[in-house]
Amino acid sequence: MPGSVLEQVAGRLTVAELDEQGLPQRIFPRLGGTRAGAVPVGPGDDAAVVAAPDGRTVVSIDTLVQDQDFRLLWPGGHRSTGFDVGWKCAAQNPSDINAMGAEATSLVVSLTLPGATEVAWVEDLADGLCAALDGLGAARCAVVGGDLGKGPAVVVTAAVTGDLGGRAPVLRSGARAGDVLAVTGSPGRAAAGLALLEGRHPYADLPGPLKELAAAQARPVPPLALGPAAAAAGVHAMLDVSDGLVRDAGRLARASGVTVDLDPSALLPFARPLRAAADLAGADPLAWVLGGGEDHGLLAAFGPGAALPDGFTAVGRVYDGAGKVTVADAEPGTVGWDHFAG
Amino acid sequence: MPGSVLEQVAGRLTVAELDEQGLPQRIFPRLGGTRAGAVPVGPGDDAAVVAAPDGRTVVSIDTLVQDQDFRLLWPGGHRSTGFDVGWKCAAQNPSDINAMGAEATSLVVSLTLPGATEVAWVEDLADGLCAALDGLGAARCAVVGGDLGKGPAVVVTAAVTGDLGGRAPVLRSGARAGDVLAVTGSPGRAAAGLALLEGRHPYADLPGPLKELAAAQARPVPPLALGPAAAAAGVHAMLDVSDGLVRDAGRLARASGVTVDLDPSALLPFARPLRAAADLAGADPLAWVLGGGEDHGLLAAFGPGAALPDGFTAVGRVYDGAGKVTVADAEPGTVGWDHFAG
Repeated sequence: MPGSVLEQVAGRLTVAELDEQGLPQRIFPRLGGTRAGAVPVGPGDDAAVVAAPDGRTVVSIDTLVQDQDFRLLWPGGHRSTGFDVGWKCAAQNPSDINAMGAEATSLVVSLTLPGATEVAWVEDLADGLCAALDGLGAARCAVVGGDLGKGPAVVVTAAVTGDLGGRAPVLRSGARAGDVLAVTGSPGRAAAGLALLEGRHPYADLPGPLKELAAAQARPVPPLALGPAAAAAGVHAMLDVSDGLVRDAGRLARASGVTVDLDPSALLPFARPLRAAADLAGADPLAWVLGGGEDHGLLAAFGPGAALPDGFTAVGRVYDGAGKVTVADAEPGTVGWDHFAG
Repeated sequence: MPGSVLEQVAGRLTVAELDEQGLPQRIFPRLGGTRAGAVPVGPGDDAAVVAAPDGRTVVSIDTLVQDQDFRLLWPGGHRSTGFDVGWKCAAQNPSDINAMGAEATSLVVSLTLPGATEVAWVEDLADGLCAALDGLGAARCAVVGGDLGKGPAVVVTAAVTGDLGGRAPVLRSGARAGDVLAVTGSPGRAAAGLALLEGRHPYADLPGPLKELAAAQARPVPPLALGPAAAAAGVHAMLDVSDGLVRDAGRLARASGVTVDLDPSALLPFARPLRAAADLAGADPLAWVLGGGEDHGLLAAFGPGAALPDGFTAVGRVYDGAGKVTVADAEPGTVGWDHFAG
């Protein structure tokens, strides 16, 4: 079939073989769709224009670097697709907006690519960006601009804008003694996935549930509706769990001038489903829950009387103190699965 | 003197020797100043909050990659300082906002750094960012956030937001037959500087005026007041001259569906001061004026009756046509200094 031969040839075309206009011409049509039509000025000019009906704009920037934040080829043989990297980019950036209690309104994306990068990989990245915005419910967010350049490794940087919808921004510094600490999702899954991808166990032989953990690493699913919901519910403090529960709880504790105590009985239900992966990787599932990053859930402090919005699970309490995190009053580094559940 | 010994040791400290908090703790204090106080939420949380009184936000992103957009060590022996790279980043990003007729309101900056990068170089970069915003008159713009990560080369990406102040955004697509084409500054200086830096002639031996051309490459000076001034004067179309007069005029011509003719007699005054550099580099000064990028001036189309705002020089005319650029009706590639001035 001539068609499939053409596809194969196109799939091997590299970035270096296209002129400066060629790559944007292939990527732009994949980014638009109907959503970009809501943006006053989309891609193609010196800058885009995004609606900011609130009179304020929330803004953040985040970068994914090859061999630091993802691998094109993992030790177990799995390959990160362009789609994966695009998805991750369009998940983690809006997650920072979510953590302010805001809705993402635009993404601008800068790609630095080795000349040998396949054009199909970049097209796949563009598809992953859009799929994440669609799949995560970032209905108001479009890719409105970007930049392309050459470099020795794949570097994907996105900046994201957001709209607070008239609400006050939710900072890390608002937690008070007596607050309930709560998380979304099931912390530790992305760390389990990372251990599986980094392990030498062949990826192809992993059972389905363990492949799902790997997917949690490659394509995180931040709960983009829950940041604004928590803000509307009067949450005191909130942040994106990008570097692990203990580390990010420490940031909240230091910013707020409080101590946070995590309840192991609330954390063990997150650890139990990770047992099989932990056994394979020779790891402690509770250590993943406490220390694993990149799930991009929310960590939030709600007032003692507040009803937690659907999707949040209480995992601890806020006390007077000076920026410490404990687990059942113990140092986080000293606790593990065996300590509490063994 | 113990003080100078300490400074020397600190100067050699590398990024790899600091923990994750160490580098932000050294950079944040350099970014703030009084200007950041005008931002509702500055650096340190998941995202920043920037005022957008106009109800719209202009947004753009741009990247500088080591050995593509700057060299740490040039062939002639000159070293790009962190200050240079920071300045260039904080000049070229607001230049895109300027070209929309808007004022820059915030910068978020992502740094990807090899572990061996000296901390002092990064501190110098932070100083260069702020010095450019101050020196270019971006009085409303602060560095409000960032991201730090490791990678095989220095990659500096910034996204910038801007405020239209109630005006319509100035697009590339608004030029009409009869318009006057005008530029700011003196196109070609940055290209001359690049040729001098890339040449093998020892940088230290260059006469002062040629070192100034190198500085035009390293630390461009976009006219940030002139974008809003042109918008207020009713400019029809405008863009940032980042890739050279002919190439960027081509973008304006294609977007507007017109033909642009450049007047060599208006361009020769830009070429004359580049003669000494051109003789040294074995280049054509008019080719620099026509083809050289990175000056980050503005290229604009004003209505035939409009008075050009101070700072703009007429360089051509807009005609009915289909996206072509000519120089005195000839193909740009066929013209040079010898053709018109030789």
